[in-house]
Amino acid sequence: MKNDKILLDHGSGGRISHSLTKDMMLPVFDNDILAALNDGAIFELQGRRFAFSTDSYTVDPIFFPGGNIGDLAINGTVNDIAMCGAVPLYLSVGLIIEEGLSLADLETIVNDMGRAARAAGVAVITGDTKVVPRGTADRIFINTSGLGLISEGVHVASDNARAGDKIILSGTVADHGITILTQREGLSFETSLQSDSAPLNHMVEKMFSAAAAAGIHVLRDPTRGGVGTALNEIAEKSEIGIEIDEDQIPLKDEVAAACELLGFDPLYLANEGKLLAFVAADCVDAVLKAIQSDPCGKDAAVIGQVIEDHPGKVFLKTRIGGRRIVDMLAGEQLPRIC
Amino acid sequence: MKNDKILLDHGSGGRISHSLTKDMMLPVFDNDILAALNDGAIFELQGRRFAFSTDSYTVDPIFFPGGNIGDLAINGTVNDIAMCGAVPLYLSVGLIIEEGLSLADLETIVNDMGRAARAAGVAVITGDTKVVPRGTADRIFINTSGLGLISEGVHVASDNARAGDKIILSGTVADHGITILTQREGLSFETSLQSDSAPLNHMVEKMFSAAAAAGIHVLRDPTRGGVGTALNEIAEKSEIGIEIDEDQIPLKDEVAAACELLGFDPLYLANEGKLLAFVAADCVDAVLKAIQSDPCGKDAAVIGQVIEDHPGKVFLKTRIGGRRIVDMLAGEQLPRIC
Repeated sequence: MKNDKILLDHGSGGRISHSLTKDMMLPVFDNDILAALNDGAIFELQGRRFAFSTDSYTVDPIFFPGGNIGDLAINGTVNDIAMCGAVPLYLSVGLIIEEGLSLADLETIVNDMGRAARAAGVAVITGDTKVVPRGTADRIFINTSGLGLISEGVHVASDNARAGDKIILSGTVADHGITILTQREGLSFETSLQSDSAPLNHMVEKMFSAAAAAGIHVLRDPTRGGVGTALNEIAEKSEIGIEIDEDQIPLKDEVAAACELLGFDPLYLANEGKLLAFVAADCVDAVLKAIQSDPCGKDAAVIGQVIEDHPGKVFLKTRIGGRRIVDMLAGEQLPRIC
Repeated sequence: MKNDKILLDHGSGGRISHSLTKDMMLPVFDNDILAALNDGAIFELQGRRFAFSTDSYTVDPIFFPGGNIGDLAINGTVNDIAMCGAVPLYLSVGLIIEEGLSLADLETIVNDMGRAARAAGVAVITGDTKVVPRGTADRIFINTSGLGLISEGVHVASDNARAGDKIILSGTVADHGITILTQREGLSFETSLQSDSAPLNHMVEKMFSAAAAAGIHVLRDPTRGGVGTALNEIAEKSEIGIEIDEDQIPLKDEVAAACELLGFDPLYLANEGKLLAFVAADCVDAVLKAIQSDPCGKDAAVIGQVIEDHPGKVFLKTRIGGRRIVDMLAGEQLPRIC
């Protein structure tokens, strides 16, 4: 390993990312909270449970249809906290800016961060700005970290999926990934592809208002690595099998067309305003209705269920009646997708 | 401003950094917690006060005598939390890695982060790794964010300096800044310059054990911008005058020599394991003794006091008996110092 180098794959969110985390990070930062490897850390303090999460955003291009690196950075961390079942409260913002970025671009980004924070109902309470010489970073990278509070009775975690659970996806897949990709490649389609970047915390609140908290077992936003990778993580950690139905997965026609043209599987492309929920069968109707009542959830659908056999595996019932394994993302499809 | 660009000065920690924060960030992320502009944010939740802080580390070179970017990133955020008078508990780590970094280098950095976290008694409970293509970042940038708990009775803030306060500096100045500078320029000195990167939370605990909490008014670690800029910030925010005594400022001979040779003022060079404390006169002996009892505080000294007149100004009594104004750092001395 002495001569081994970091590859783009190490940041893909797929299998090699996971190895890096498990083999290098976990043994060093040895604690149970980190070892749970949820979207955010869940810890107890003063008798209350908190969620704490961090993400760095390096998306290229920094402006794209549907958003920019600024609102993406706010929404992304808001969502990671919401996926812990927590109400996000406070965020930090750390900017690394390349010398020469235009002040007007920075102002647009900061303004959109402010707008996104207000939309999510969170406060940015601390920050840091570093400027690095030209050529040592690409325009701007943003880290956001955040803190949320978990309500009594809420227990969602990626190892909490159970036999009999139904799986809800809150809307169409791959919108963010395919938008970034086509922008970067300079492709233009007649139809307007757009990132789905959005905060999901209000949707999660509606879900917990609509159903017994004990009926919502897993929440996950399928960002890097997409729905395919997120489901694999849940299957592995919960030691359950998963079956999803290709026909039920919401997918926009123009996204499907762009994926086919470019040779990408929408199940592995990033989403930035969608969630997967594993829900007890007797709650599924109420939770689905709650999601659909949110502006970001109108296309929500039940896409599959937990199955009795094949723990750790994810299967797709294809449109033509076949059944294939959906594996975790192995390589890197798209660096700097978020 | 449309054609204005971000300059290295905007990240200096000096006057232009402050303008960017005040003019662009504060109006957008409009809240009282952020507006206090302490080293970290202080907020109340569930009847307890917390400190929350973030910092991105972009130091060049990433390995230097006395540390590397990894332990620096842990110590820096531990210290920002400790400077809020809080006991640091939990950290997040966000890595942005350039494709091609050697895995061995990454492992050294991660191991040293683990060592630093254990030394400070904090747990890294959540993280994120992004890899960006070759040429779009310089080896590795690290963000750490952290959370701490403030004890009852502790109230330190940069607007809390008061007439009659004595000012303690916990050790020699400019060790980190001059070490990075000489490394970067490929200069070698016969004596061994070394960064002072260290956690200060144990020292702060000793200070609060030794004196009434109400006697400790301001804590600040003079990192980017150095002691000169930190004192100016405190003078401005507390609306008090400050006088420090050049003769009393701890400074290693080899650091003084290197500063003179290279034309740098040690008052503006970064420190990564030092603190300034503004303390009521009747506590100063006890607090100084507590600091000196810490391994990082043996060279601590009282370097000055708050004066009645000239609010917002910092004066230096020079060795030859003169008196000059110490202004806030105006330009950028050293990009990527931390």
